Amino acid sequence: MTIDADQVPVRVQELRPEEPAPTTRCRILATAEQFFRDIGYQKTTVADIAKTLRMSPANVYRFFESKKAINEAVVERVTREVEALIAGIAVAPGLSADQRIAEIIRELHRDCIERCSDNPRIHEMVEAAMSESWDACRHHIDRIGKALERVVTEGVRSGEFQVEDPATTAACLHVAITRYCHPVLVSQYSNAPAPPIDAMIAFLLRALHGPAERS
Amino acid sequence: MTIDADQVPVRVQELRPEEPAPTTRCRILATAEQFFRDIGYQKTTVADIAKTLRMSPANVYRFFESKKAINEAVVERVTREVEALIAGIAVAPGLSADQRIAEIIRELHRDCIERCSDNPRIHEMVEAAMSESWDACRHHIDRIGKALERVVTEGVRSGEFQVEDPATTAACLHVAITRYCHPVLVSQYSNAPAPPIDAMIAFLLRALHGPAERS
Repeated sequence: MTIDADQVPVRVQELRPEEPAPTTRCRILATAEQFFRDIGYQKTTVADIAKTLRMSPANVYRFFESKKAINEAVVERVTREVEALIAGIAVAPGLSADQRIAEIIRELHRDCIERCSDNPRIHEMVEAAMSESWDACRHHIDRIGKALERVVTEGVRSGEFQVEDPATTAACLHVAITRYCHPVLVSQYSNAPAPPIDAMIAFLLRALHGPAERS
Repeated sequence: MTIDADQVPVRVQELRPEEPAPTTRCRILATAEQFFRDIGYQKTTVADIAKTLRMSPANVYRFFESKKAINEAVVERVTREVEALIAGIAVAPGLSADQRIAEIIRELHRDCIERCSDNPRIHEMVEAAMSESWDACRHHIDRIGKALERVVTEGVRSGEFQVEDPATTAACLHVAITRYCHPVLVSQYSNAPAPPIDAMIAFLLRALHGPAERS
């Protein structure tokens, strides 16, 4: 990202002087997210965001080197919520490994469905992030994968699950629920047939409990 | 589909007089498919197809009521090949139910990957058929689902699989392989992580063999 020389020096007086940098970053992102919800990430300009915050665009660029960096950070903001929920389920006391897997899959599905219906423009941005493999999106998939792996590993340790390779098993589980959690499939292919999520969860849990003795 | 009155009467002399109607339909589809491969289904016109076959467009419309009907029939032609292969695997002698499931999944994956790389314009049409839920596409998914259901039902009958509801189990199995067989995921999201197909097959077969005794 290059900035024209005449855009610099930054009009620093527009920053609230007492405000720490992380707070400014946070205000920029909250404003960006609101714009993205209202008019979409593609139509939103850095100038829009700056104007709302009574900053110069160059000042915004002190915190985010490009519009793309803002897009990435908003996707991260949006996906962090469900990640926190899922990380919580992965370690919540009093749940069996079965229950943790079931809850995680239900939450991922619910999150995707809700965003698609309640915030279509944000959903559209997450779709683009998937299709263009933005860093924020890859990290999100990784973090969900890690939470699943943790639960599978714990389930093996407690004797509830019987699988040889928890990491590969968790990856298979993750990819098996694509139809229920992939932003594009949920929004654009919702008419494709799929069993109810609870039937799918029951099916997948059978794979985790390991094969019966062959007759 | 309406045809202008001055396009009718059809120039019947252009048909080979001895040719039965199914053969003409077949020649129209073969020509359409070739155009779709070369320039894509969207740029191909009924006039292009008619001209190549030395027919009038109105004559083509005697066999297919619209361009959309030709599109549908070409998708059916294209998908019938893998369907026949899979129907064959479902009943081939000397295979266990495990082997049938594994082979069917591998063939579906291979078919999708190959079409995507070798015939990108045909693949694009299948993608559109999925996204717009064309009849030909829904029927294709149904037929694959039926083949899977047949193998699961047979596997239960032979004692190889232990599942309570073969139809629902087959539907879960089918939806679990979405990442490997959905034209859009294979072509546009191929960078999303996925375990090797053989690891996925092993995982899914565990679900079909039923849960081990709980410890």
